[in-house]
Amino acid sequence: MIQLAENRYGKSRVRLMKVTRHPHGNDLLEWTVQVLLRGDFESAHLGGDNSKILATDTMKNTVYSVARNSSAKSMEEYAMELIDFLLGRNPQVSSAEVRIASTLWKRLTIDGKPHPDSFMRGSGELQTTLVEKSQGGTFKIVSGLEDLVVLKTAKSGFEGYIQESLTTLKETSDRLFGTAIKAEWLYDAEGFDYEAVRSTIRETMLKTFAEHDSKSVQQTLYAMGESALNTVSEISEIKLAMPNKHCLLVDLSRFGQDNPNEIFVPIDEPRGYIEARIVRQA
Amino acid sequence: MIQLAENRYGKSRVRLMKVTRHPHGNDLLEWTVQVLLRGDFESAHLGGDNSKILATDTMKNTVYSVARNSSAKSMEEYAMELIDFLLGRNPQVSSAEVRIASTLWKRLTIDGKPHPDSFMRGSGELQTTLVEKSQGGTFKIVSGLEDLVVLKTAKSGFEGYIQESLTTLKETSDRLFGTAIKAEWLYDAEGFDYEAVRSTIRETMLKTFAEHDSKSVQQTLYAMGESALNTVSEISEIKLAMPNKHCLLVDLSRFGQDNPNEIFVPIDEPRGYIEARIVRQA
Amino acid sequence: MIQLAENRYGKSRVRLMKVTRHPHGNDLLEWTVQVLLRGDFESAHLGGDNSKILATDTMKNTVYSVARNSSAKSMEEYAMELIDFLLGRNPQVSSAEVRIASTLWKRLTIDGKPHPDSFMRGSGELQTTLVEKSQGGTFKIVSGLEDLVVLKTAKSGFEGYIQESLTTLKETSDRLFGTAIKAEWLYDAEGFDYEAVRSTIRETMLKTFAEHDSKSVQQTLYAMGESALNTVSEISEIKLAMPNKHCLLVDLSRFGQDNPNEIFVPIDEPRGYIEARIVRQA
Amino acid sequence: MIQLAENRYGKSRVRLMKVTRHPHGNDLLEWTVQVLLRGDFESAHLGGDNSKILATDTMKNTVYSVARNSSAKSMEEYAMELIDFLLGRNPQVSSAEVRIASTLWKRLTIDGKPHPDSFMRGSGELQTTLVEKSQGGTFKIVSGLEDLVVLKTAKSGFEGYIQESLTTLKETSDRLFGTAIKAEWLYDAEGFDYEAVRSTIRETMLKTFAEHDSKSVQQTLYAMGESALNTVSEISEIKLAMPNKHCLLVDLSRFGQDNPNEIFVPIDEPRGYIEARIVRQA
Repeated sequence: MIQLAENRYGKSRVRLMKVTRHPHGNDLLEWTVQVLLRGDFESAHLGGDNSKILATDTMKNTVYSVARNSSAKSMEEYAMELIDFLLGRNPQVSSAEVRIASTLWKRLTIDGKPHPDSFMRGSGELQTTLVEKSQGGTFKIVSGLEDLVVLKTAKSGFEGYIQESLTTLKETSDRLFGTAIKAEWLYDAEGFDYEAVRSTIRETMLKTFAEHDSKSVQQTLYAMGESALNTVSEISEIKLAMPNKHCLLVDLSRFGQDNPNEIFVPIDEPRGYIEARIVRQA
Repeated sequence: MIQLAENRYGKSRVRLMKVTRHPHGNDLLEWTVQVLLRGDFESAHLGGDNSKILATDTMKNTVYSVARNSSAKSMEEYAMELIDFLLGRNPQVSSAEVRIASTLWKRLTIDGKPHPDSFMRGSGELQTTLVEKSQGGTFKIVSGLEDLVVLKTAKSGFEGYIQESLTTLKETSDRLFGTAIKAEWLYDAEGFDYEAVRSTIRETMLKTFAEHDSKSVQQTLYAMGESALNTVSEISEIKLAMPNKHCLLVDLSRFGQDNPNEIFVPIDEPRGYIEARIVRQA
Repeated sequence: MIQLAENRYGKSRVRLMKVTRHPHGNDLLEWTVQVLLRGDFESAHLGGDNSKILATDTMKNTVYSVARNSSAKSMEEYAMELIDFLLGRNPQVSSAEVRIASTLWKRLTIDGKPHPDSFMRGSGELQTTLVEKSQGGTFKIVSGLEDLVVLKTAKSGFEGYIQESLTTLKETSDRLFGTAIKAEWLYDAEGFDYEAVRSTIRETMLKTFAEHDSKSVQQTLYAMGESALNTVSEISEIKLAMPNKHCLLVDLSRFGQDNPNEIFVPIDEPRGYIEARIVRQA
Repeated sequence: MIQLAENRYGKSRVRLMKVTRHPHGNDLLEWTVQVLLRGDFESAHLGGDNSKILATDTMKNTVYSVARNSSAKSMEEYAMELIDFLLGRNPQVSSAEVRIASTLWKRLTIDGKPHPDSFMRGSGELQTTLVEKSQGGTFKIVSGLEDLVVLKTAKSGFEGYIQESLTTLKETSDRLFGTAIKAEWLYDAEGFDYEAVRSTIRETMLKTFAEHDSKSVQQTLYAMGESALNTVSEISEIKLAMPNKHCLLVDLSRFGQDNPNEIFVPIDEPRGYIEARIVRQA
């Protein structure tokens, strides 16, 4: 017998730009929102009965309407408002999740002063949050960032690994270490200053990345997660994924030239991939 | 106390092109391989001790070396060979997973005949497999496809959904239904003709998509999964994700023109997102 | 003194999907249209006077409105209709150009028969046209294709090139030759069966690519252009650009294995780039 | 008679990362280089004779070898060195062009201080140069930038444009104005401080963008080009392309809400496209 085991649906890539207008200038936010619902949708799947289906187009409208009324100070709080709105109006929905990715915009500096209403797109780094709640439950909040691309040109080596018949990599005590950090941290509870926590975690991880005397991506990744947990008490675990974006030293000896770790070829593929979840134990 | 809870690492985006040379022509395969290992790597994370670390560069070499000797008839079988090779040589590894995505190449037809050694890139559709095994365990094989982009111009409507204060979508009994199918099916066991199964599942789903009198994406998605499970006894469940790639009818009445479902604007965002897991129950 | 030397403006990425409904099934076209206008727009640039500016939003509406009424049998003819419409209503416009890229959709085959109303996205190959006209002038029509990705596994070598102190590439009489063909052909006049010409040029070039005994990308590129000009009398020149999408032979001798041109790494960068314009001389 | 009218070839997407090591820290540059040569290559195209062909792989090696020895203070100077090297060794080459795009890396700030050897990827903005020279000729240097994405939330309107039967856009004195600036400026001569000029042009254009009371993209684009030419005497013309990256005001009145220019949907397509070349006349 064939059965529907699990299902969810919603709207993804709902783009929202919000301008907040103050007397002396404007603030700018750009978010990409995804809403997903689980619930009692078996009749739609098996019978084509849409009577319990909230159209994904309506979810899109809801994103904009709730944003207009929102006084949330963070993505996390807005996501909670949106979820409560959806759960409150849709008893057939058993749980809702909202994922938001925030694009970086930086205020322009003109003649040395911050401009009141003009902005420049920042790097490709995204600030993210994934908030979930079941009917009658509590919020699970996982915030993070991704595509934070960093590179250190000193204090990174890779030595002492397994030597076997398929090993061709040369050991080095001095290599470039480039990565695109993806981090997700789990909040213990709700009601925090999410923006402040985010900023602290980000700075702490960058400081550890820069200062760490790296023996491997694994070791530096762990040190970054450890420093985040040590610095921020509001989170109980952090998951980090750090691809190794390799930069290959060019062999110039073929041309009678030396290459004292100066000329490299950055490559996009293949890439190492390292991930770990680091937790605070009671 | 802070602890390492979980970790895995490996090499991603290892690209492999394999030409098999026959007396009267060649075959061509292009795969992108990812290898991930779990195991006893705590000393690397906490102490910077790499003595149990198989370099990801060595994994890359392993992909090529094993491919040269392989007589696998499918991605699934090659992935199993690769996993057994890695587990056999690395007792510190507790489990290994290999993901392969295969790019479509089609043999060129010249003067009405298949050409022996020239090929054309097919669509962006990927054939995928994800194979996992623990030391001493059995293989878990999940194969699939993604980015199979299809569109039906008839037999699709969307009516009878919830009408509420934020609903602006108009009901229609005749809309375009475009999607990018992602499917993953779980094999019950190993030893099958994976290529034949793949081909049958793909054709079955396409036939259902084309012929289904669709009341919603949900209903068609379920029908596609159901037909796959009904047709192929080797699999016990299938997971389908089908974004709704909307095509908006252009309002030409503003210009005194009718638009009998002929002129549309395809949009990439926002998009509906529908997914479900459909299982065969004993 | 500072002056406006040249300017043009318009709307790009106007996406249009057209379903043509017949008694026994539908046809499907997906185009991305760009409209650019040149003309007397100095007062807008220098004085902020928009009175001669046709809003780009209006151009977008024009694309859809003209498409609804169009009976064009090809992109080229539709582009001409659109240009004549725009030039006729806008005397301040001195010339207009329309670029269209057509996305591949293939009719689904179900149970061995073409399905009347369901389609599958084809490869990333685009069919293109760029049509220009000045007020009172004649049409210049350049059609083409791009991202036609092909690869030959035999009859390709590269030998006898310059050997100098920075040369490390090894000569080979047997390599993989992969490329993404971009072609643009110039029509002598108007009024042709553009779809038939396009199809003939494409097939001719593919046949030459497959059969050519290639000494270099340059030689094969020229042979392809030559065969197109020899086969199709309606065009007077063709411009071809063919990046060399390298596939590197993996050195397995380090692992005690041979590699008789079977295992390759395809790379996206760097890539060779070869282009030429080939003309018919009177 | 069919002829080779024009041709050029070379290597594109040659990626180079250069670390310059100082006693107290490192500098980091990442460039993507393209080399294209024109010359006497007819025998390769028509006869498969490669004796005058410098392999594109050798060009790639040349990029790295010349970079190692280079003392250039800018992309422009390195490009000139590379061209002179290639022209000097290859008399069969009639002219060479080098295009470089530089990726933004910013030094990390840790505890308020610039870190000596760690960096973060900046925005997607690229700094570019295109340098050309014929055998025995002088350098033509066109530098620029692209994908400098900016947005102003005030002082932008669009009114007074043509109203016709296909016009549906509403006039507004207050809209968001977002764009991705592409600029290319032509140097009068060589021997300048290219980095200083680049920085001045960029700042001048950003200041004009931010402060301009914009009646249209055209007017702001012209003002930006004019200010660049007025500020920098070393250039004689500037070409600007500024797509209009639209942000649509969401109609919340359907839900009984106002929207005082606060909630927008940014869209990627369609987009306006505006370009102009602005020159200094003697």
